[in-house]
Amino acid sequence: MGKRLTKREEDYSKWYNELVITADLAENSGVRGMMVIKPYGYAIWEKMQAELDKMFKDTGHENAYFPLLIPKSYFSKEASHVDGFAKECAVVTHYRLKNSDDGKEIVVDEKAKLEEELIIRPTSETIIWDSYRKWIQSYRDLPLLINQWANVLRWEMRTRLFLRTAEFLWQEGHTAHSTESEAMEEAIKMQGVYADFAENFMAMPVIKGEKSKNERFAGALNTYTIEALMQDGKALQAGTSHFLGQNFAKAFDVKFTTKEGKQEFVWATSWGVSTRLMGALVMTHSDDKGLVLPPRLAPIQVVIVPIYKTEEQLESIDRKVEKMSTELKSKGISVKYDNRTTHKPGWKFAEYELKGVPLRIAIGPRDMENNTLELARRDTLTKEIVTQEDISERIKNLLEEIQENLFNKALDYRNGLITEVNTFDEFVEVLNKKGGFISAHWDGTSETEEQIKNRTKATIRCIPSGTEDQEGTCIYSGDKSSKRVLFAKAY
Amino acid sequence: MGKRLTKREEDYSKWYNELVITADLAENSGVRGMMVIKPYGYAIWEKMQAELDKMFKDTGHENAYFPLLIPKSYFSKEASHVDGFAKECAVVTHYRLKNSDDGKEIVVDEKAKLEEELIIRPTSETIIWDSYRKWIQSYRDLPLLINQWANVLRWEMRTRLFLRTAEFLWQEGHTAHSTESEAMEEAIKMQGVYADFAENFMAMPVIKGEKSKNERFAGALNTYTIEALMQDGKALQAGTSHFLGQNFAKAFDVKFTTKEGKQEFVWATSWGVSTRLMGALVMTHSDDKGLVLPPRLAPIQVVIVPIYKTEEQLESIDRKVEKMSTELKSKGISVKYDNRTTHKPGWKFAEYELKGVPLRIAIGPRDMENNTLELARRDTLTKEIVTQEDISERIKNLLEEIQENLFNKALDYRNGLITEVNTFDEFVEVLNKKGGFISAHWDGTSETEEQIKNRTKATIRCIPSGTEDQEGTCIYSGDKSSKRVLFAKAY
Repeated sequence: MGKRLTKREEDYSKWYNELVITADLAENSGVRGMMVIKPYGYAIWEKMQAELDKMFKDTGHENAYFPLLIPKSYFSKEASHVDGFAKECAVVTHYRLKNSDDGKEIVVDEKAKLEEELIIRPTSETIIWDSYRKWIQSYRDLPLLINQWANVLRWEMRTRLFLRTAEFLWQEGHTAHSTESEAMEEAIKMQGVYADFAENFMAMPVIKGEKSKNERFAGALNTYTIEALMQDGKALQAGTSHFLGQNFAKAFDVKFTTKEGKQEFVWATSWGVSTRLMGALVMTHSDDKGLVLPPRLAPIQVVIVPIYKTEEQLESIDRKVEKMSTELKSKGISVKYDNRTTHKPGWKFAEYELKGVPLRIAIGPRDMENNTLELARRDTLTKEIVTQEDISERIKNLLEEIQENLFNKALDYRNGLITEVNTFDEFVEVLNKKGGFISAHWDGTSETEEQIKNRTKATIRCIPSGTEDQEGTCIYSGDKSSKRVLFAKAY
Repeated sequence: MGKRLTKREEDYSKWYNELVITADLAENSGVRGMMVIKPYGYAIWEKMQAELDKMFKDTGHENAYFPLLIPKSYFSKEASHVDGFAKECAVVTHYRLKNSDDGKEIVVDEKAKLEEELIIRPTSETIIWDSYRKWIQSYRDLPLLINQWANVLRWEMRTRLFLRTAEFLWQEGHTAHSTESEAMEEAIKMQGVYADFAENFMAMPVIKGEKSKNERFAGALNTYTIEALMQDGKALQAGTSHFLGQNFAKAFDVKFTTKEGKQEFVWATSWGVSTRLMGALVMTHSDDKGLVLPPRLAPIQVVIVPIYKTEEQLESIDRKVEKMSTELKSKGISVKYDNRTTHKPGWKFAEYELKGVPLRIAIGPRDMENNTLELARRDTLTKEIVTQEDISERIKNLLEEIQENLFNKALDYRNGLITEVNTFDEFVEVLNKKGGFISAHWDGTSETEEQIKNRTKATIRCIPSGTEDQEGTCIYSGDKSSKRVLFAKAY
């Protein structure tokens, strides 16, 4: 503590890195590009997992677990898939270490070389579809709705805590269906689950849409995405759901017998969100004083700090707080009472501000006399003195209000940063001066997309769902366009 | 279905393998020694995880996450640790694949060779203690009580589903303390948590004790174990907790400033249980008809099967069961209603017997008239017709009774298989004819232990805790012994 955070406007990227580290969310490990998720960061991730897991189960999915390592030959079976991931694969080639001949060090035992190299999963489509061939025979075995919580590894050259790390934690859903339309519905349904989670738990507004061909998952026929906007005006892809067609079924020869007795290839989806969401959470709400956490994902929702001069005062506050905590906990509110005598109240205030605890209660001898307490909100940084009567009800309501306030604030910010442009000059100007999402007509070709990306670093974040076609002219090529799409610089 | 399981007495090992596969717990994958945990098996593991996680948190531990890959140089720092694990390490040497020169296949890109090889964690002491060096400065930072849920990999030549697989899932606790006694207390406390979990949730009686030096964890000064007995008379180590002394603190230079301002090395423990417990669960309770699951870990506690001839009958049963299910669920009981019309009741009965569902309700037209139902227990295979009145209360009690009955049955079996012997001849006879734990005097030397192991395949499972010293003569060497220890053949 004591060290002031870099301000967002000074250097957003530096602010982010410092915050993730000082708030004890994560840190770099001694292994290139791999992070350590510290207990406070992991506690937030656990809350995310619990909510998502419930949502997956409520929509009929079951969890399972598949191997970490994938034989190279499986991995190569779907051509565009392997093209997409080959450059980031960690490869296991040996299975034993031994003492060197001079006995001075430990070396790889060259006698223990694998006949076929194994890849650490960058995603599990291939190993999972190899199992599905055995699991699926008949239409009665479908749909197969499975999710896996796992670590995956994609070798990355430039890494940033949570946003881009070589190893990350995620969930990956892999479903199998008897018809094309059912698989497409599933992919869109799970995009909806992600949007619901992002907005209602992370308090992070997202735009739903489809990816352009260039930005699709390697092996997908269509990718449905949810796109969020960070406080520096850059977009972040927060979750994707893929319609895989019959690509993996064909690569792994997964057929089923229809009701009519015919043999057909199975239709597939996959969908995932990762610890990247932790980065999105930090960058959506936090401020120059530290984290700001939405109550529904905060490991500690209320912290109580006693203010006292004498030990007697502390003891009487302790007794009062014990009762209050019990009442709060009985309403499902997570409370921490920090009565450590090794730290001053001011230090504690700064600490819990940094950690983003939504509500802080301070209670001193005068409050004890007057039956009051001081209640401070992390989101608005406002304080008020309130009566202790009905405090748990008040806090319950206040937590809901904070949750809503954070969402609305982020929504207002995001809505203020969607700009329609009609020329490439406007496009470049908005991109450089304002940032955010730029809504522009595009001719639908990969070439145009590529050239805009090369010249401006902006990519098509999505073709928004639910908007009607509108005649127009591509801002870059001048060719005909039937729809506006959203461009942005992105994480 | 339809295929009868091999009987336990015919071939216990075959029975186990068939059961794990036909009950849909797990199967072998296409990757050598690595299993796929199927949804039903994973649901049981999730229940285990939830209970253990709660117990860890109730004893003050927090979760965190550390990298999957460990640089070889870290791994080598603690000499006995690396000796213990070097032979089973999967080694990552490259980080990219590419198209072969002829473009016909995908090969490892030799240009992307790592300067230093990375080891897939077989356990995480080394990577974690490398972080702890940064986290621990002062006595105020201690104790550090951290747990990790993770996958680990130990290259195994002979594998068996759940019992011994190259990759497995586990939790590993890693704690740091300022004093030797506090670390020892922690190690023993966590052994107690494991014993509590094994007995109260898995309904599996265990013996607590210490490992002999030969059987200790690589790098530990003492290993505390819980040992269970399977139905074939072989022992299974179900969980271990290690007192690591200052070995890892010294290897990674982790010192703290004491209250008095001195610099001292930190004291450590580590402790873990794994998906091996799934194997132990299966082998403790199951029978020739299939799985038998203790209610506290059963994904489905009660299954309800309708018996009907007409659609009208089914509809009226559906309505009745809907009410009953709601009531059962409100008491926290997990219920499945299987009214599929594609399968006959007899098929369903066999299916849920195989899956080990603790209670089965059958309800037909006569039951509808008489306000009764048929209640069948999986543990005793008994059935009775009971009234529908107060059914949820009855079921709640019955589930507790089944839980207790399974434990007592396993305890009686286990207690009947602890045999005291006083000569090596007796030892060999009991080992071969009866099996189980053999309580025998041992001179305390590794040589004797080794020779007994070589001649009989029996190992010292533990030096039981809480037994008083007793003068005696080692059954093998004839030397003086101060204590009986427990030998057994083991998984």
